[in-house]
Amino acid sequence: MKAQRVEMFVCPSATPADTSGLQALADAGKIKPDTLVALVGKTDGTGFHDDWARIWADAALREWTAKFLGVPKDEVAKHVIFVLSGGCPGVITPHIAAVTREWVEDGEPSTDKRLAVGRAGSESIAPEEVGRMGMIRKVASATHEAMKDAAITDPKDVHLVMVKVPGLTVASINDAESRGLTVVSHDLTFGPEGAGSYANDAAALGVAMALGEVPPSKLSDDVVRRDWDLYSEVAMTSSGGEKRHGEVVVFGNSTASVSPLVIGHSVTKDFIDAQGVRDALRSAGLHFKDGLPDEGDLSRLVHVFAKSVIPGSDQVRGQHITLLDDHNAYQIGKALGGMLVASVTGRTTNYVSGGERNSHQGPPGGNIVAAVVRAD
Amino acid sequence: MKAQRVEMFVCPSATPADTSGLQALADAGKIKPDTLVALVGKTDGTGFHDDWARIWADAALREWTAKFLGVPKDEVAKHVIFVLSGGCPGVITPHIAAVTREWVEDGEPSTDKRLAVGRAGSESIAPEEVGRMGMIRKVASATHEAMKDAAITDPKDVHLVMVKVPGLTVASINDAESRGLTVVSHDLTFGPEGAGSYANDAAALGVAMALGEVPPSKLSDDVVRRDWDLYSEVAMTSSGGEKRHGEVVVFGNSTASVSPLVIGHSVTKDFIDAQGVRDALRSAGLHFKDGLPDEGDLSRLVHVFAKSVIPGSDQVRGQHITLLDDHNAYQIGKALGGMLVASVTGRTTNYVSGGERNSHQGPPGGNIVAAVVRAD
Amino acid sequence: MKAQRVEMFVCPSATPADTSGLQALADAGKIKPDTLVALVGKTDGTGFHDDWARIWADAALREWTAKFLGVPKDEVAKHVIFVLSGGCPGVITPHIAAVTREWVEDGEPSTDKRLAVGRAGSESIAPEEVGRMGMIRKVASATHEAMKDAAITDPKDVHLVMVKVPGLTVASINDAESRGLTVVSHDLTFGPEGAGSYANDAAALGVAMALGEVPPSKLSDDVVRRDWDLYSEVAMTSSGGEKRHGEVVVFGNSTASVSPLVIGHSVTKDFIDAQGVRDALRSAGLHFKDGLPDEGDLSRLVHVFAKSVIPGSDQVRGQHITLLDDHNAYQIGKALGGMLVASVTGRTTNYVSGGERNSHQGPPGGNIVAAVVRAD
Amino acid sequence: MKAQRVEMFVCPSATPADTSGLQALADAGKIKPDTLVALVGKTDGTGFHDDWARIWADAALREWTAKFLGVPKDEVAKHVIFVLSGGCPGVITPHIAAVTREWVEDGEPSTDKRLAVGRAGSESIAPEEVGRMGMIRKVASATHEAMKDAAITDPKDVHLVMVKVPGLTVASINDAESRGLTVVSHDLTFGPEGAGSYANDAAALGVAMALGEVPPSKLSDDVVRRDWDLYSEVAMTSSGGEKRHGEVVVFGNSTASVSPLVIGHSVTKDFIDAQGVRDALRSAGLHFKDGLPDEGDLSRLVHVFAKSVIPGSDQVRGQHITLLDDHNAYQIGKALGGMLVASVTGRTTNYVSGGERNSHQGPPGGNIVAAVVRAD
Repeated sequence: MKAQRVEMFVCPSATPADTSGLQALADAGKIKPDTLVALVGKTDGTGFHDDWARIWADAALREWTAKFLGVPKDEVAKHVIFVLSGGCPGVITPHIAAVTREWVEDGEPSTDKRLAVGRAGSESIAPEEVGRMGMIRKVASATHEAMKDAAITDPKDVHLVMVKVPGLTVASINDAESRGLTVVSHDLTFGPEGAGSYANDAAALGVAMALGEVPPSKLSDDVVRRDWDLYSEVAMTSSGGEKRHGEVVVFGNSTASVSPLVIGHSVTKDFIDAQGVRDALRSAGLHFKDGLPDEGDLSRLVHVFAKSVIPGSDQVRGQHITLLDDHNAYQIGKALGGMLVASVTGRTTNYVSGGERNSHQGPPGGNIVAAVVRAD
Repeated sequence: MKAQRVEMFVCPSATPADTSGLQALADAGKIKPDTLVALVGKTDGTGFHDDWARIWADAALREWTAKFLGVPKDEVAKHVIFVLSGGCPGVITPHIAAVTREWVEDGEPSTDKRLAVGRAGSESIAPEEVGRMGMIRKVASATHEAMKDAAITDPKDVHLVMVKVPGLTVASINDAESRGLTVVSHDLTFGPEGAGSYANDAAALGVAMALGEVPPSKLSDDVVRRDWDLYSEVAMTSSGGEKRHGEVVVFGNSTASVSPLVIGHSVTKDFIDAQGVRDALRSAGLHFKDGLPDEGDLSRLVHVFAKSVIPGSDQVRGQHITLLDDHNAYQIGKALGGMLVASVTGRTTNYVSGGERNSHQGPPGGNIVAAVVRAD
Repeated sequence: MKAQRVEMFVCPSATPADTSGLQALADAGKIKPDTLVALVGKTDGTGFHDDWARIWADAALREWTAKFLGVPKDEVAKHVIFVLSGGCPGVITPHIAAVTREWVEDGEPSTDKRLAVGRAGSESIAPEEVGRMGMIRKVASATHEAMKDAAITDPKDVHLVMVKVPGLTVASINDAESRGLTVVSHDLTFGPEGAGSYANDAAALGVAMALGEVPPSKLSDDVVRRDWDLYSEVAMTSSGGEKRHGEVVVFGNSTASVSPLVIGHSVTKDFIDAQGVRDALRSAGLHFKDGLPDEGDLSRLVHVFAKSVIPGSDQVRGQHITLLDDHNAYQIGKALGGMLVASVTGRTTNYVSGGERNSHQGPPGGNIVAAVVRAD
Repeated sequence: MKAQRVEMFVCPSATPADTSGLQALADAGKIKPDTLVALVGKTDGTGFHDDWARIWADAALREWTAKFLGVPKDEVAKHVIFVLSGGCPGVITPHIAAVTREWVEDGEPSTDKRLAVGRAGSESIAPEEVGRMGMIRKVASATHEAMKDAAITDPKDVHLVMVKVPGLTVASINDAESRGLTVVSHDLTFGPEGAGSYANDAAALGVAMALGEVPPSKLSDDVVRRDWDLYSEVAMTSSGGEKRHGEVVVFGNSTASVSPLVIGHSVTKDFIDAQGVRDALRSAGLHFKDGLPDEGDLSRLVHVFAKSVIPGSDQVRGQHITLLDDHNAYQIGKALGGMLVASVTGRTTNYVSGGERNSHQGPPGGNIVAAVVRAD
């Protein structure tokens, strides 16, 4: 029986176009054209709409990957999934994490569950489905397929699902309306009623539906960005107008994996909840000492993936905060998520993405944290 | 023998001009015209130069205090020291802490040291002394006087020294130069070579000199903002062009106090060092459980005072961060300090001030944290 | 027959709370408790949501006015209309313009039309009417009443209509929905689909309806923020959640006025159209020389009121601009409007307000400019 | 006799990496490997320190040019001078202007002066010379050489001098100090006492010295960034730590040129002086009608180069402005310069650079404007 062997390599980036870390991995034979499945990273800059660093990073990484795989640039996406999140305010080190999966002969069955990765594309998602049940159902289906690809059967073994879905554009809105259909919003931003927020949140509910976190009976167009009690604890989603279908990457643990890595997750219960970050490390199997991660054992920590969605309320534990009023709230919120993780892990090379206020990604006011650890 | 009884009351502010918390304290008899010695607070807004919230808060508080004391507005400063720090990005709740001191008859001598407060004004500081030895020496003298006022003799019992000193202005520079003298900088900002930064840092070295943290032999004009190994662990300083002399408030513990409060302090060793915050709470006497503050005991925590000076280096624990490049670095740095404290204390009403890069306030890359706790 | 005599005095403000200019006018007898009808001003700061300068200015002006009128603070609004617009980026001098109207005996009828001012409150506007026909109709009615109050009969004599209307709040949305009704948006911002934008724009269409700029047959809920060819050339509107009804101030010229002032207006056809500003000055009667305002005659210019709504398109005269992508687009857009006016008038004390993208206030891509001139 | 034929082509850029306009020019034979002498452009983004768009543009343009010239990337600078200015806030269209010069046989001597271009590198500039007389003298010499290269003898024929000089770095400061020498500043920013500002301003005074705008007797280390009455009307300068010598490009008119283009210049007398922009167009030979550029003739306008240094004073024509207090003052100042030019030229594709407060580039409070026009 073939088993998958998944590895994850984290390379700090000196500039948005820095591919030297990836090249070193390639030169050392650690990543190969047929094992590279995903590049997940954080790029320099503000993360605002007028920040070009993410676009530059995307161009440079795609060019590097095309050469590495020996395929044309516009075919790279068929082979490797890119998840680039812009903005490294504060104590988030810009970096790229390369995820590889190779298939090895594995004589003996294992009881240990190890890191498994699976991918799937969804069916094409029409503009009128964006942010609505159509998108939710198609993302749910793709999540099931990605679980199958990862050889994970129990939803409890899934600890992180990264999803990219189509947003809306002027053109796609026109398309839907010319067919007599409505769209979820005419606001093309990621504001509270923005199409981008609706798309991200429908994708999160799709994951929640697939994993049984939310029963299908509770789902309808009307609950998206309205009923915050419905959420996924493992979905990190993003959207862009240029896509036509969704892409799903599932990370979990499976006995069909012989990876040296294990993944775990938890959620923070509010914006200052360091315990939630500690729980994620514990869930992944890190040893603790005196209530804190054992410093000696932290060397086993490979990577942390965290969301930093800013809360919908201006109260944290009964006290008033002014974050929601701030002109730079999304940037500051992302920075704060970075500090929460770094202050627990003692390192700054963490994946922390944000940019929304309120979300079905994680519980109301809290956020998702997943951790990958080298098994001991 | 008379003993001092110091109290501290923390009032969240709904707006910069909100004096309702102070009024409630006054109505309840907790603060009285002859016991109020200091108002220390954080105000809403960005904390940038174009943020008017701090100015508004200052005007509103001075007006309220003048009425409360029954003195003209321009005499308030003789009775009550105001330390208002602008900018509450992220998870810092705008608030005012009122510090009171009353003198009580205390028959029996005590071995317990309790919170004591002392104040002193320095001699007049000339523009040519700003940021130089003249300022250092005058702040050191005033610190000694404030210790005497607080009835503290051992420098080890001092845990927080708040200092306000004159900065430079176009007028004061002209004054010095017309007398054939030079000034430390023509840059009136708080930038790396700004007069404001030099003033803040000379004040910090003055405290360090007074407390024996730095031997006088190591001090000279040339070390200010050059030799970062010289620093105070307890000095929080600020400067403004309009002042002519320094003001010093010392917080420490003394057997001559019968306050129900105790103060302690520690420093963070770098920008993500949550342990430094925990150490400050422990230093003040808070109980810990499993390496973390005992949640039940956190109700004894009265207040935390922390600096969040951004580091001079773009490396944290060997990893590159981009904070120093950020256009909003001071705002984000302050927000991060707020998160570091809040993630340990579980509350957002903390005094966290920032606005400099590199400082003699705390060790290189790290920051000062002081905590006030109700004695158990 | 009684005739109105309207005056306008422009006072630069040194700080948001500066009322010294108004006090000097009061001391000189130029404004009196029974003649002051409106205070229209620009306040220091960024104009973003976390800018407290406008709130402070409002508090300080209301306090001053209450004392001046001898009425309680919460009754000031019955006597004097406040229009304060936050944010003076670039070359916009913070200022307050005081508008007075007194009634004088005027024996002889005049053919000259002079500046007239009229005010009216609208009927109460329910949350479900905000941004929709209900609001449009009620603002239209109030505009007619305010014209009557101003003694203006011909809509062509109206050159500026300032309107304040209710926006939506969490509470008012709940109110409407609890009665089984819908609201125009759940987005409480001034973003593209924000309730604030809908409210402002419905108010503008209400003015357009009243003045015959848009025929009633073309108006419906569906055209608001959709059909940009419908607009007013004279409506400057704002909205706030706290109001329950609309307030309308009409500025125009009337033979029933013996004011020494005259008003005129024009629109810019796009964002860089200095000619539109010149046309407004010419419309008000300023003399020109060689295509430019005669410098000697500019002393007759009393004040300019301009909008600086940023365009919906990223093209200006066929060239691509990046303003719409900018994180500070509204601040920069306001600054640019200030420059456009200042570069024509040669002065910086101009009222320029902004904060929206696309609007029924002025033509698509262009903006409204009104000018008040001392008659020669 | 050989005569130069200079051309200038302005290509809007859709993204920072957009080289399609240059490629189209190359394909059409308008620019050739041996005629391309300079690329001068504005790039997307904020223009702040954390804006990566300029870096990306530089990388992409250098790569394109290397391929175009058939030389290695690191030799491009020997052949083509790059001047890229970051930040296109408001109404500045991102663009690249390609400057070409070819040598043609020109039988008959001409009396018409046409656009001529000359380049020169300065001697190596040591860190202790940065911002001081050493730099001033070396830039002056290089300016004379570049004039010679351009075949311009009369300084009055010089209308624009673009200069790039070394700034200071931590390493170069250490180098100077290890040799017992001082440097002009330890502040590596472009703040009021920043090394970058001193470098830019010494370069400007070097041009002023070369062109006789300032007599050598008035120049000394002490006047740099102190005596603002000394300035050049044609110098646009920039600095970067990585350079070791200065680069100078002179644009002027010469009878030794058979270019179809002519250049002229003027200065604005203050920040809102549209007349200064009009004067620059008139100086270049554009026809005017009624005091304004003749719209029909504007098609002859090829390009405008303007500085937008923000003023040192907070007064414009006796009125207070708050620009200097603004956190985004440099971005807003640049945007305002863009509007001032665009409101006169009716187009947004103008080169407008800024980023300093006060400068020897242009008169106190005013700025330099140069215009290139197709001769009629």
